Amino acid sequence: MRNTPGTAWKMALAFSAVAAMAANPEPPGQKVAKYVFLFIGDGMAMPQISSAEVFSRAMSSKDIEIKRLGFTQFPVAGLTTTYDAGSFITDSASAGTALATGNKTLNGVINMDTSKTHTFKLITEYAHERGLKVGIVTTVSIDHATPASFYAKTPSRGNYYDISVQLGRSGVEYFGGGGFLQPRGKNNDQPDAIHLAQQAGYTFVNDKAAFLALKPGSGKILAVNHTLQDSASMPYEIDRSPDDLRLADYTRKGIELLSGNRKGFFMMVEGGKIDWACHANDAASSIRDTLAFDEAVHEAVAFAGRHPKDTLIVVTGDHECGGMTLGFAGTQYSTFFTRIAPQKMSFQRFNDEVVEPYKKATARDKARIGDLLPALRDAFGIDFAALSPGQKTQLEQAFRHTMGDDAAHPDQEGRFLLYGGYEPFTIKVTQLLNQSAGIGWTSYAHTGVPVATFALGVNQGLFAGYYDNTDIFRRLARTMGVASVNP
Amino acid sequence: MRNTPGTAWKMALAFSAVAAMAANPEPPGQKVAKYVFLFIGDGMAMPQISSAEVFSRAMSSKDIEIKRLGFTQFPVAGLTTTYDAGSFITDSASAGTALATGNKTLNGVINMDTSKTHTFKLITEYAHERGLKVGIVTTVSIDHATPASFYAKTPSRGNYYDISVQLGRSGVEYFGGGGFLQPRGKNNDQPDAIHLAQQAGYTFVNDKAAFLALKPGSGKILAVNHTLQDSASMPYEIDRSPDDLRLADYTRKGIELLSGNRKGFFMMVEGGKIDWACHANDAASSIRDTLAFDEAVHEAVAFAGRHPKDTLIVVTGDHECGGMTLGFAGTQYSTFFTRIAPQKMSFQRFNDEVVEPYKKATARDKARIGDLLPALRDAFGIDFAALSPGQKTQLEQAFRHTMGDDAAHPDQEGRFLLYGGYEPFTIKVTQLLNQSAGIGWTSYAHTGVPVATFALGVNQGLFAGYYDNTDIFRRLARTMGVASVNP
Repeated sequence: MRNTPGTAWKMALAFSAVAAMAANPEPPGQKVAKYVFLFIGDGMAMPQISSAEVFSRAMSSKDIEIKRLGFTQFPVAGLTTTYDAGSFITDSASAGTALATGNKTLNGVINMDTSKTHTFKLITEYAHERGLKVGIVTTVSIDHATPASFYAKTPSRGNYYDISVQLGRSGVEYFGGGGFLQPRGKNNDQPDAIHLAQQAGYTFVNDKAAFLALKPGSGKILAVNHTLQDSASMPYEIDRSPDDLRLADYTRKGIELLSGNRKGFFMMVEGGKIDWACHANDAASSIRDTLAFDEAVHEAVAFAGRHPKDTLIVVTGDHECGGMTLGFAGTQYSTFFTRIAPQKMSFQRFNDEVVEPYKKATARDKARIGDLLPALRDAFGIDFAALSPGQKTQLEQAFRHTMGDDAAHPDQEGRFLLYGGYEPFTIKVTQLLNQSAGIGWTSYAHTGVPVATFALGVNQGLFAGYYDNTDIFRRLARTMGVASVNP
Repeated sequence: MRNTPGTAWKMALAFSAVAAMAANPEPPGQKVAKYVFLFIGDGMAMPQISSAEVFSRAMSSKDIEIKRLGFTQFPVAGLTTTYDAGSFITDSASAGTALATGNKTLNGVINMDTSKTHTFKLITEYAHERGLKVGIVTTVSIDHATPASFYAKTPSRGNYYDISVQLGRSGVEYFGGGGFLQPRGKNNDQPDAIHLAQQAGYTFVNDKAAFLALKPGSGKILAVNHTLQDSASMPYEIDRSPDDLRLADYTRKGIELLSGNRKGFFMMVEGGKIDWACHANDAASSIRDTLAFDEAVHEAVAFAGRHPKDTLIVVTGDHECGGMTLGFAGTQYSTFFTRIAPQKMSFQRFNDEVVEPYKKATARDKARIGDLLPALRDAFGIDFAALSPGQKTQLEQAFRHTMGDDAAHPDQEGRFLLYGGYEPFTIKVTQLLNQSAGIGWTSYAHTGVPVATFALGVNQGLFAGYYDNTDIFRRLARTMGVASVNP
């Protein structure tokens, strides 16, 4: 006799005396919080968190232990599924829609249903109805999928101009961080979205001194970082100049500007480039951005320390990225996280400042990998001579592919498996360095493993257990005292 | 001004008003449970759990959703770090030591300190002192690291004979599942450990009818499954004959035999071959064993339904294995889990029944991959002709390596990265099938990502949050009402 687990379980859980215990570990959260923070580490699941915790410890001690991030010390931890309406692997648009509205939709769709005809009501709209102010902060461009999910509705995340026009009409009181991808439209022929926002009452700031001088009562703020790197994003933490503003600064300023509001605020803060680093299989950059994200959470914790009875802080990820693992076939049961410590810049900066210029300046028949080895040592601490024969072969092959040596090209499928859409030499460098540290990757895209969610403050217990990303919306809405029309 | 996150966090958490909230999400568990179950999925972390949940749903519906396992529906979920005293990546010996004694030790060491001179006191010894009976159940050999951690102390997990001698002296009331690796020692010249156990009062049973006929009052039981597969283990679930006993049967019998004890019992049940399947990157076998493990947990849930005020069930993994990811570079944002559904046998059985016999019977110059393709289709549903050119090349190369074609050998490092210690053709089959389903792997060993822990019953709230595997011992000990001398 063999039971189908599903049915048997349903019966056991529904009809046995265990059901009462299983119902809810804590009394339902009836409290309403005045100040609600939702921190989203884009592409941040347990491998990203754990690699940062292992790295931090490995840097300070030879003892084997982890150094817990701040937010993982929150009293409540949960597990969250992230699949969307069309795939077990979500993108940031459908994940953002789930978090902002409690609805599943398709990859690429922002706050509309799977038919792309009906729109959903946002948690930020509920917040406004209740008189809360709203802040949206991100390290990536402000029109990118995750931040856009908290103010815009569009059938395609690629409609950057449409999104930035909606930004100006959103009434969101504070935008901070990255810039715009297409402020004048795809063809650069539309009214400037920043001007439209200014006409709608926003003060546009993209100067550090002016930003730091902002005070409550300045009205609606659109603050774009003075320094932008790839795709109108703030620089990777690993590439940031010491003087430049951090995600934590944008978070603290948001708290300063919004907290005077009698009814409170809702603030979404995204560490967006954890994801981008993981797409490119660059662990050092992912880890540094995760640590910077943790510093931003710390600003909220400091605020919660002053308003402990009125604040809820939730930290989650929207999905895993890269299929990152804390182990690799070649290093077996060992890890060597200190090997990524010498890395001084992101794959992106190395590509922009070293590989691309070399490629442009060098004829294929004059190209020699030796030309790039000093830069490789400076940027990543990699001593080519010390690599294994197999590693050397891989890097040399990638170099030839980067230089356009067609004879060296594997077929399309093989090329994609080797490099994704990245510059071959650049991504092979981070892959080999990561592997030597004992960090493996299986993808250049997201993966479907559940993420971890942490909570501190009012109704924190609602975020314990194993639940879906759409439940985060419902639990936030409950804590904000809003009745949701979304299911 | 930039804070070191560590220090800043410590201050914020220790001195702010938040500290009170952060201290403990629930009142401390003061209750004592009479019946305590610890289920360990060996090699089972979130990827293993989640792949089983995605697979179960994908088999029954085209809707994107997951079908939750029974134990993941427990009211409490936590996250658990697994690093040991010498590595961020534990093995089952040091992980078993952490769970059974609350102490960190080195890979390979069972219940002794890192100097291998001092022994630790086991949770099962505490249980015996308090008058509880003890059951130990596993799908792998009963002298394997995880089960051994609950009754033996030895500097090396490889001391199988020493372990099986200790088994006979342990006083554990019920052993069930796999057999012995070296019952007469390494050189087959020692007194039979099974006889020693019998002399110490154990009834040895390895017949299905006799097993099913066991009744309370039969005395101490050593029950070894009639059918054993590789390394004296029970067969993989995917290879099990319908008539053969399941892990759930051994669990239910343990409950039947031990539950009459007035003071209660402690039972450890291990799904040991989830790990073995993942070492070999065989997702279908891992998933089927995870579902069978869930069925075993269900036996405990049914028991808890009859004793809800006296029972605690904890389900955890001892570590991740294989660097499994729910996504793969080649399939990007899609998964195709139904592609592993046609798999009819484990990599192990395919290797034992198809590859090894062919290898032995066939001269290298007569070997043709075509000879194995019908078996490949039968066992895995793989149509070689439908593979991509790159996949064909990989499989053909692996076939040549399996047949000992030295010219086709990459260097040692390259060979290990490709196949680990496995038969090249066999492991390449599961890898390619998994990749086509959208499942990636980075290792043939364990990895260091934290595992998930689920709890139901008395003091379940103690298992919420993010904590270390040594904390599981402490929380179990507390729930069993034992004062521990271990730190």
